[in-house]
Amino acid sequence: MKNGATEAQVRAVIDEIERMGYRGVPMPGAQRTAVCIIGNQQPVDGSTLLAMDGVKETIPVTKPYKLVSRETRPDSTVVIVGDVKIGAGEPVIMAGPCAVESEEQALTIARLVKGSGAKLYRGGAFKPRTSPYSFQGLGLDGLRILDRVRKETGLLIVTEATDSEHLKAVEEYADIVQIGARNMQNYSLLRLVGHISKPVLLKRGFAATVDELLMAAEYIVAEGNSRIILCERGIRTFSDNTRNTLDLGAIPAIKQLSHLPIIVDPSHAAGRRDLVIPLSRGAIAAGADGLIVEVHHDPAHALSDGAQSLYPAQFDELMKDIARLRQYLARS
Amino acid sequence: MKNGATEAQVRAVIDEIERMGYRGVPMPGAQRTAVCIIGNQQPVDGSTLLAMDGVKETIPVTKPYKLVSRETRPDSTVVIVGDVKIGAGEPVIMAGPCAVESEEQALTIARLVKGSGAKLYRGGAFKPRTSPYSFQGLGLDGLRILDRVRKETGLLIVTEATDSEHLKAVEEYADIVQIGARNMQNYSLLRLVGHISKPVLLKRGFAATVDELLMAAEYIVAEGNSRIILCERGIRTFSDNTRNTLDLGAIPAIKQLSHLPIIVDPSHAAGRRDLVIPLSRGAIAAGADGLIVEVHHDPAHALSDGAQSLYPAQFDELMKDIARLRQYLARS
Amino acid sequence: MKNGATEAQVRAVIDEIERMGYRGVPMPGAQRTAVCIIGNQQPVDGSTLLAMDGVKETIPVTKPYKLVSRETRPDSTVVIVGDVKIGAGEPVIMAGPCAVESEEQALTIARLVKGSGAKLYRGGAFKPRTSPYSFQGLGLDGLRILDRVRKETGLLIVTEATDSEHLKAVEEYADIVQIGARNMQNYSLLRLVGHISKPVLLKRGFAATVDELLMAAEYIVAEGNSRIILCERGIRTFSDNTRNTLDLGAIPAIKQLSHLPIIVDPSHAAGRRDLVIPLSRGAIAAGADGLIVEVHHDPAHALSDGAQSLYPAQFDELMKDIARLRQYLARS
Amino acid sequence: MKNGATEAQVRAVIDEIERMGYRGVPMPGAQRTAVCIIGNQQPVDGSTLLAMDGVKETIPVTKPYKLVSRETRPDSTVVIVGDVKIGAGEPVIMAGPCAVESEEQALTIARLVKGSGAKLYRGGAFKPRTSPYSFQGLGLDGLRILDRVRKETGLLIVTEATDSEHLKAVEEYADIVQIGARNMQNYSLLRLVGHISKPVLLKRGFAATVDELLMAAEYIVAEGNSRIILCERGIRTFSDNTRNTLDLGAIPAIKQLSHLPIIVDPSHAAGRRDLVIPLSRGAIAAGADGLIVEVHHDPAHALSDGAQSLYPAQFDELMKDIARLRQYLARS
Repeated sequence: MKNGATEAQVRAVIDEIERMGYRGVPMPGAQRTAVCIIGNQQPVDGSTLLAMDGVKETIPVTKPYKLVSRETRPDSTVVIVGDVKIGAGEPVIMAGPCAVESEEQALTIARLVKGSGAKLYRGGAFKPRTSPYSFQGLGLDGLRILDRVRKETGLLIVTEATDSEHLKAVEEYADIVQIGARNMQNYSLLRLVGHISKPVLLKRGFAATVDELLMAAEYIVAEGNSRIILCERGIRTFSDNTRNTLDLGAIPAIKQLSHLPIIVDPSHAAGRRDLVIPLSRGAIAAGADGLIVEVHHDPAHALSDGAQSLYPAQFDELMKDIARLRQYLARS
Repeated sequence: MKNGATEAQVRAVIDEIERMGYRGVPMPGAQRTAVCIIGNQQPVDGSTLLAMDGVKETIPVTKPYKLVSRETRPDSTVVIVGDVKIGAGEPVIMAGPCAVESEEQALTIARLVKGSGAKLYRGGAFKPRTSPYSFQGLGLDGLRILDRVRKETGLLIVTEATDSEHLKAVEEYADIVQIGARNMQNYSLLRLVGHISKPVLLKRGFAATVDELLMAAEYIVAEGNSRIILCERGIRTFSDNTRNTLDLGAIPAIKQLSHLPIIVDPSHAAGRRDLVIPLSRGAIAAGADGLIVEVHHDPAHALSDGAQSLYPAQFDELMKDIARLRQYLARS
Repeated sequence: MKNGATEAQVRAVIDEIERMGYRGVPMPGAQRTAVCIIGNQQPVDGSTLLAMDGVKETIPVTKPYKLVSRETRPDSTVVIVGDVKIGAGEPVIMAGPCAVESEEQALTIARLVKGSGAKLYRGGAFKPRTSPYSFQGLGLDGLRILDRVRKETGLLIVTEATDSEHLKAVEEYADIVQIGARNMQNYSLLRLVGHISKPVLLKRGFAATVDELLMAAEYIVAEGNSRIILCERGIRTFSDNTRNTLDLGAIPAIKQLSHLPIIVDPSHAAGRRDLVIPLSRGAIAAGADGLIVEVHHDPAHALSDGAQSLYPAQFDELMKDIARLRQYLARS
Repeated sequence: MKNGATEAQVRAVIDEIERMGYRGVPMPGAQRTAVCIIGNQQPVDGSTLLAMDGVKETIPVTKPYKLVSRETRPDSTVVIVGDVKIGAGEPVIMAGPCAVESEEQALTIARLVKGSGAKLYRGGAFKPRTSPYSFQGLGLDGLRILDRVRKETGLLIVTEATDSEHLKAVEEYADIVQIGARNMQNYSLLRLVGHISKPVLLKRGFAATVDELLMAAEYIVAEGNSRIILCERGIRTFSDNTRNTLDLGAIPAIKQLSHLPIIVDPSHAAGRRDLVIPLSRGAIAAGADGLIVEVHHDPAHALSDGAQSLYPAQFDELMKDIARLRQYLARS
């Protein structure tokens, strides 16, 4: 739409698109609003639309995804949660344990990461585990502990939803709802989080291409929730010096293809504590919008992922590192 | 338990295991019943159990999975559905379209594959698709069409459940409920199919190891459903002559590790029609218990996976091929 | 060229191609001779050639390789060595130890595999090893032992050349010169074996695509040696139940793309003895022209690859298996 | 050996090792000299050695490589060539075209990269190409042009040797001899460069693990040349947003395992110009000792790798970027 197109003009365009048998989704940007046509299997003749009031141009989108594509929306999306802006230039750090194990553990770590400057707290209440016999998370009790963490520390909460059954509860307690790598192509769940009121942290599947990640995000936006933060967390390869291979090139590639912010999980990529800081530096220098990092005050006794959790002192060092890198980036 | 141990003796062992703080799951075999201890994080001292009546020996299981392990149950599991036995030596062929598109399409193909000798019919009513804009299946209407297919042709029905919402309906209409590759680590769904009354066809994720596949099966058996058919359908690699790379070695490897039957999906492995028959031959010769093959009478107009669907005449040739191979195998 | 084109006509076409600034390579087939144009960066205008005597048609080749392409030469190449025909329909089995360790070891195994029906003997004198501290083969002494094996048993010898320095000696002693997976893109070596008088067994690199394998073969044929046997030996993937993942689909894919024969090395694909037979069966059933299999009479004390070497009794069983499969294939 | 052990003492230890049937290789460090035992298949009893004059301790090395291991030599190796120190803390940038195409092209680019601050010039005279019909480099003429570049600009020359035939000439003209990714396991060539007088830039094979890369370096050091610079250049995976996937974690992993410097080739990892700068930033921030970057003044007409070559203005920007990052790193 033209700069200054009225809401009525946007509405009229959407109505016309629906008369053509498709769906029209408005995408408001900083300057102008785009209206995206979805549901067409083939190219659409845009001449009728072009003739309407307030329409500036029609742009055919060449990618299989539309709503998340930068072709559709050149301005970067900034996801705002509380007083934190993700995708606005300043790297955002989310930190905490892999799993919530107890109120004491959760609060201890929360105070430590807050002390180092983190504003978001990660911690799983529902844990998807390869073995049915591994610790599966505290469930609803875990969510209540996370609520305590927020109230006591003011940290915002990022926690995972693994199924439709508990999504409502997660939505209620979380500030950002995480969809894990194993659920990236759980389309039923993606559609459901398309209807929630909270932003979604969507992790790349460990064998998904960037296009498949963006298609997964498209599922969510197509249902109405466009507050999505993508997350690169390493892919499965033959290389065995890390648990997964961090796909660094995915960060700038996604920045070109999509307007959504992209953060990095160096902990799951590395799978070992001693590589988390170098991977974090590399990710931020390559343009990531933030990090989600595992921190534990007693990793030797962590119920999951202890080997890849930073000690609090290491996390503190990482935060200082990132602050210095930020200055470098500010001048680039 | 010893040969001839009574039900009361088995019961007593289970009670004792529960007194120890674990769960005991009976695994009846052709000769004897095994009782599996689950829930222990560390090795269990079996001396008390050994002293009980009817107990023959205690065997520590070295694999992360127990219930699906051949260490626990040396006899191969045979999954019986209708008059078909899967895992009993004779290769079982499941065939049909990728997706149910209409009653006419479904019935046309059903009659053709039945004519060639198939006893099971595959066809998706709920389709997990990478793009939200691709055909997603006919849903409940698709299930009703599949019901028609069974009634008209007598073919048994294999169809996929993608979420908890529609699982009940799929369970009702299907003879075998398929869990697709993308949902192999959807643990909530796995737990739910652990409670249904139908056998489960569990496809290997395209980036899952064999151990991860067996752990996924373990989730289902741990909930009580031990009628599982595993399915190798190709893994994601750099190799680009097929859509996925059929992991032929997984077939004999799984036969060693687990008592569950394993079939192969050559259509998704190949991604192209002309390689389906050579892959099928290779899979059967390497010991697969069966195949699940896509067949379409008009693949050029198929709503999904047309490029990899066999023409009915090719499927007929494949069935003859397999019959000949069966003779070869019978003499091996 | 037309059926019955004279040598002078072929010569004239080659001269004309050279006048155009390219190279013309004659490819004699069962019925007709093709003349391949190489050295062109862009499509060539064939009108002058079409007007010449004896020319039937000009066919643009769409693949990056030409000489090895089935587009250029529809008839399958049969590589004849001694009284063995590779690629003529009957699977050819090459067997022997990974490395020649001593005359006694080499002869013992040779007599055993001959007794089971093998006609070709494999055994390395020059071994490319990941560690400089591992056994590197007996070198020239190993070649002399292989010569003894041939004289005593009549088996034909397949052995590897690893560099230009020893190529002359390997050419002299071998009936088939093997180029190993690690040297598949050692283009200097490929060019050199393009000039030898013996057939070449070219193994696929463990991370090479099928197109790259065919380009490597093209290097050899472009230098004048068209007696090439390709070999699939497994690719490097994340899957960990075998040392490499046998790319079964590569067999029929190569059959379509190229006229060269393709055999399979199940030993290096499996990396473990117990999977060699199932992989062998699968490979032959999928259309491989033969196998190259490691056999050792005392694998526990083998200086390399003991874990994947068959016991002689297993090899005997495999030979019987393949004979039965051959009957099945004959009827297909 | 102890701090201040005499040469005679070191000599005596080596002699004793040889009496034991192994080889002793002295590894002089900043403080002390280590003597490495190679050729043993099993642990060695060090008691005799411990009793000798000047011996401080014996350390069993747990890795399959020894000479390149940081266990053997805790101090980082600094490779000095001209006035450039690689591995001394300051990132070293090597830049130039993929291939030398003409004197004019080579000199034009050399002056540009020198103007931006590069001290080393990369350019191939011998090019390993997938297709025998692609431009294979200017060969000896290319080396003479590189000599001109050095004389005119003072830049040091990095160029590849692809076989034994031309190694002597490459050694003569190059300041650093590159071994390409495809030749990383060409052990004959590795042994030969173990005897040259110039440092070696050893690129990781695109499907090699870090251990395999270090074993390849071990081959070179075992022959006597310990001036090796390792190079990570991306690995082959399923991910398709870059030509290869840069294995960022390999940088810190190698720093831990080995004392050798490690640089990164962002051009071959990316395969596309627009991702070279983000990958370069990430690599330096993660701890790489330098970069080797492709630059071309007219990439649209480059005879190879044009799509991934930076424009000179982009390279200039990259050099400024790295200078800023260096300041950040200096404070870390």
